Amino acid sequence: MVTSPVNVRYLTGFTGEDSFLLVGRGVTVLISDSRFETQIPEECPGLEAHIRPRTKTLSEAVGEVVGRAKLQKLAFESATTSFAQWQAIAQTVKPLELVPQSDLVETLRLIKDEDELADIRMAIVQAERGFQLLKASLEPQMTEQQAANELERAMRHFGAKQAGFDTIIAVGPRAALPHARPTFARIGESDLLLVDWGAKTVSGYHSDLTRMVVTGTISPKLEKLHRVVLQAQRRAIEAIRPGVLGAVVDAAARDVIAQAGFGKNFGHGLGHGIGLEIHEGPRVSQNSKTELKPGMVVTVEPGIYLPGWGGIRIEDDVLVTRTGHEVLSSLSRDLESAA
Amino acid sequence: MVTSPVNVRYLTGFTGEDSFLLVGRGVTVLISDSRFETQIPEECPGLEAHIRPRTKTLSEAVGEVVGRAKLQKLAFESATTSFAQWQAIAQTVKPLELVPQSDLVETLRLIKDEDELADIRMAIVQAERGFQLLKASLEPQMTEQQAANELERAMRHFGAKQAGFDTIIAVGPRAALPHARPTFARIGESDLLLVDWGAKTVSGYHSDLTRMVVTGTISPKLEKLHRVVLQAQRRAIEAIRPGVLGAVVDAAARDVIAQAGFGKNFGHGLGHGIGLEIHEGPRVSQNSKTELKPGMVVTVEPGIYLPGWGGIRIEDDVLVTRTGHEVLSSLSRDLESAA
Repeated sequence: MVTSPVNVRYLTGFTGEDSFLLVGRGVTVLISDSRFETQIPEECPGLEAHIRPRTKTLSEAVGEVVGRAKLQKLAFESATTSFAQWQAIAQTVKPLELVPQSDLVETLRLIKDEDELADIRMAIVQAERGFQLLKASLEPQMTEQQAANELERAMRHFGAKQAGFDTIIAVGPRAALPHARPTFARIGESDLLLVDWGAKTVSGYHSDLTRMVVTGTISPKLEKLHRVVLQAQRRAIEAIRPGVLGAVVDAAARDVIAQAGFGKNFGHGLGHGIGLEIHEGPRVSQNSKTELKPGMVVTVEPGIYLPGWGGIRIEDDVLVTRTGHEVLSSLSRDLESAA
Repeated sequence: MVTSPVNVRYLTGFTGEDSFLLVGRGVTVLISDSRFETQIPEECPGLEAHIRPRTKTLSEAVGEVVGRAKLQKLAFESATTSFAQWQAIAQTVKPLELVPQSDLVETLRLIKDEDELADIRMAIVQAERGFQLLKASLEPQMTEQQAANELERAMRHFGAKQAGFDTIIAVGPRAALPHARPTFARIGESDLLLVDWGAKTVSGYHSDLTRMVVTGTISPKLEKLHRVVLQAQRRAIEAIRPGVLGAVVDAAARDVIAQAGFGKNFGHGLGHGIGLEIHEGPRVSQNSKTELKPGMVVTVEPGIYLPGWGGIRIEDDVLVTRTGHEVLSSLSRDLESAA
């Protein structure tokens, strides 16, 4: 029983909520409600749906469907089924054994097929074109929040469903916070802007990029740090190929930053998978035991953060291919001034 | 132990994720991680935080904090704690008894205080100004999706953090789907447009409104249906006062629609609470046993849906006051043509 909405979407194409998918030998049923009666045949032609009446709870509907399917036992996704749902379903499927399961669908999702890759490429194009439009529109008096709004507008203009996550636009010292949220600080307050953004396509796939935008003078310190981060990113990307562990790719970047003396200023993992979720497997971090395989798409995003001064991060999206890797994103990583 | 992010936000102001709040006699601790080390003192001055190192899981951190607090037993939110989290925490707090709990914080959230009301009023202003800008910008060749994008842009322009939910913009017959999603259908394809939208403020509060926009001729049928829905909404709003059950308010609207012969064409509940979530308590539906109390804010959104023809819905946000009610939203409900 698949209870995670994103896993249900992955397996069926259904984008609604409060619906569980029962998959077993000879049985595939989406257990849903009347809000989605029209939407299900549109999004999932041919999929059997059990539409519960408003007088029944989802757990009661699960009990009915499971009862009819004559199962031996029922596995459920333990990370996305709440304790309360589990309790209620345990009652309605009695005396059937409920077996907690995890990562079954997440493991399938690690490897992207052709359609998924096409969608991720589209999410990258939407994000990149949006960013170029933002860059062309930047003015010193704009606030971080206004710039984030402009980027949202631009990505939607280029076909995105919406921003893939809350855009980070951080002026100067605020860039030292890896998860800074846009404020009313003005773009012109500093020489430097960190932009971490991405698009979500109508089909639900994400891109995730980070660039530094220079809005003032390029100081020698900025130039040096940028060179180190860029070098770290290059080394990591070069290390990406089938059979390599996530931890090895992380180390390729981390070593460059540590050798430059900034080991303590890179406090997060190097990257993560992207797909129907903005953060999904595989993790690319210091203790990632996942072996890279063709079809995985990961971010590579080393950074150096100096509290009080600011932060530098460069992030691209990389596909693991049969022979190595392909960098899917294409924006220049050079330090160049916006108009 | 509060595990729902929105409940944690309600109690502390913290907007991050993956963080649990332990509240008990003499103990209030936010159990979080290093990503939020700077954010927590900014958002929740004076709140004790336990920042777990990256080598510990959230469940392990819960075990440590709970161990130090010397509790008799530990209640947890059963609707927002996953089965897997529950299992892991049961291990780390052993032999402490874990007690499933629900709706404790949700019950507090039913009644809005002054600050919350001010924020909801702001969300309504952002939504209403955004809508007026959209209406002024509408052109026949715009698609539903473009109109939704324009509304998002306009609400952000007026200070909203973002749209409070996926905007519904439905041209003609598509308005018969209560949860239609924007498509590439063009505004000019029909005489009528249903817009169901709302804003989310920076502090996280929502508004939720629906209006019909006439883009062509007002047919007698449209005029009649609109009159019925408007009358149903008026009756329901008049019924709102402290001590009345949600079901009674729902019936006030439903009776008007049924008497006009459209009882089967109003297939959803009359309304729901709004606040930090776009759908929260109290429900205002046929079987809602919740008694209205001063400080509750609910939507009142009757509708008539005729498959193949379209749908009419009118939705406003209403505050329950000591003496009756106050309609917080102020856009005209008349059938009037957009330019």
